[in-house]
Amino acid sequence: MKKLQACLFAISALTLAVPASAQFAKAEDAVKYRQSALFVMQQNFSRVAGMAAGKIPFDAKVAADSAAVAEFTSKLPWAGFGPGSDKPESKAKPEIWANKAKFDDYATKMQTEMAKLAVATKSGNLDSIKLAVNATGGTCKSCHDDFRAK
Amino acid sequence: MKKLQACLFAISALTLAVPASAQFAKAEDAVKYRQSALFVMQQNFSRVAGMAAGKIPFDAKVAADSAAVAEFTSKLPWAGFGPGSDKPESKAKPEIWANKAKFDDYATKMQTEMAKLAVATKSGNLDSIKLAVNATGGTCKSCHDDFRAK
Repeated sequence: MKKLQACLFAISALTLAVPASAQFAKAEDAVKYRQSALFVMQQNFSRVAGMAAGKIPFDAKVAADSAAVAEFTSKLPWAGFGPGSDKPESKAKPEIWANKAKFDDYATKMQTEMAKLAVATKSGNLDSIKLAVNATGGTCKSCHDDFRAK
Repeated sequence: MKKLQACLFAISALTLAVPASAQFAKAEDAVKYRQSALFVMQQNFSRVAGMAAGKIPFDAKVAADSAAVAEFTSKLPWAGFGPGSDKPESKAKPEIWANKAKFDDYATKMQTEMAKLAVATKSGNLDSIKLAVNATGGTCKSCHDDFRAK
């Protein structure tokens, strides 16, 4: 009974009363969610990019593992750009919500290139990885140039 | 040529000169990485827990998708608890590094229960999901009680 109470306490502490339509309890959570997902992605992508640039010794397994995490997490941030998530202070420009179709197109392109990078790292061919890193990095830059404040 | 330069710029901006042995460029990145991974996981777990507790209307697909993300991200935070990552200010207690084996055991248990939750959500059976949410929430609580400052 005591254990059940502890569990119920843990659950109530972790949950919030929100409608299913609202993916996040508050706009600040949406912002933190997209920033968190992008940070996890960026850390993993940067490791592979560092290997491609010769700044980090090439390790095929680490590259493949990192690219797999980057690919998975590349799908996550976009849920955090929903209606109302433009309100809290962040580097996301209002243009995102004004040009959502263009933003979504950039997001799709990045995910496509990140998936290709994951495939390239599985090949273990450093030249293929370099090309895929360049293509992926280009999609990051395009979006940051248009939609992220300095 | 201009495009190549833009790509190379994007890559150099995203990479850091670090040895492969150092998974993160600096201890602050390790802390931010584990916090980010745990936040993404918690947001997804909480959505399923909210459905289990009747606070969010049950949607089998959303539950399964959320649990899948929670399962994947449950594997990530631990890389951010390496040597030196106890230095930056955070809620992580020094006991983590003093009792690493116990901490790792909690981490493994949480990942095991989160994987079971992902299986339960695929079944679509709310009773199974409730049991798995309780078990998973219990592993969160145990670890927070021992290793996380209030």
